[in-house]
Amino acid sequence: MPVRWAFEEVGQPYDVRLVSFAAMKEPAHRALQPFGQIPTYEEGDLSLFESGAIVLHIAERHAGLLPRDENARARAIAWMFAAKSTVEPAIVEREAAILFERDKEWYDKRMPMLDERVRARLTDLSNRLADAEWLDGEFSAGDLLMINVLRRPAATPLLEERLAAYVARGEARPAFKRAFEAQAAVFAATSMTEQA
Amino acid sequence: MPVRWAFEEVGQPYDVRLVSFAAMKEPAHRALQPFGQIPTYEEGDLSLFESGAIVLHIAERHAGLLPRDENARARAIAWMFAAKSTVEPAIVEREAAILFERDKEWYDKRMPMLDERVRARLTDLSNRLADAEWLDGEFSAGDLLMINVLRRPAATPLLEERLAAYVARGEARPAFKRAFEAQAAVFAATSMTEQA
Repeated sequence: MPVRWAFEEVGQPYDVRLVSFAAMKEPAHRALQPFGQIPTYEEGDLSLFESGAIVLHIAERHAGLLPRDENARARAIAWMFAAKSTVEPAIVEREAAILFERDKEWYDKRMPMLDERVRARLTDLSNRLADAEWLDGEFSAGDLLMINVLRRPAATPLLEERLAAYVARGEARPAFKRAFEAQAAVFAATSMTEQA
Repeated sequence: MPVRWAFEEVGQPYDVRLVSFAAMKEPAHRALQPFGQIPTYEEGDLSLFESGAIVLHIAERHAGLLPRDENARARAIAWMFAAKSTVEPAIVEREAAILFERDKEWYDKRMPMLDERVRARLTDLSNRLADAEWLDGEFSAGDLLMINVLRRPAATPLLEERLAAYVARGEARPAFKRAFEAQAAVFAATSMTEQA
């Protein structure tokens, strides 16, 4: 989603190649993504991985996702790193517990601690956002990545009103809607194929 | 350390302002760093946070940390994000368990799982590095951030030979040594003050 959304924001066409869970761990995919994850990005001779780096690459080449002012641009990139390396990890940790430790005897005891770690990040984020529409001036690649992170199922139930409204503003953007519908259409088609 | 090291690599002077653990959570610091962390960065009117963003900012303005070739530059930035959002979180999760869950009844049962999560990232990283000196061609800001991440105490005991040698190559760089010695001198001075 973040890469689709970025392409839609800057109005550039793109092709999508789906990768199955099994194929993600194969050498052919690992040549593009050393950690066996998605997404990857290919453009002529260039192949990239890490959604943060891919979105930054798109944002550097096409107007619409980074401010022109040098300082504002640097701050937008700071928010990109904050989304991926400060906010997302707490959410992923909660997600991993839900997925992999639900049957463990410690699950119910640890969960409040994991909730608290996520809430601490979200409270700080919400305090900084305050009454602003976006994190720092105009909508930027920083908001795009942050909203993608906040949309993870392990974060959604913990969002208070202000951050929920922030996510809703992102989802209301025409570019987000186009990306979301294109993504949903692919999943619907894939799931029909698998059922056939 | 990553910001000091970056400044030393590009040969630019810098001043350091230390922030105490208590001051990190105060409003004055949170105005610079919404999540109450370090480092922050100030340059004229610009203030930045997130070590990845700060190192990228320095690397964009001074030669020595990003390749000139456009594609190689984009790939170096992908390694910066990989260090901060794919490799570091697994290490931080292990670190948090060591710091905050050592007295819990589940600690010994969970630890092998956390070790395995870190090892999975390190194995992928080591496989990609293979016999190369650095992650992608010349030493870059991607190596700088990755080596900083691998130097975290929660990662060090899990490094196998190849990654330990990679970290040692980073630590052998004159710029790293200058940064390390400057950092050590400040800690020594601070600790003497606190004892006085």
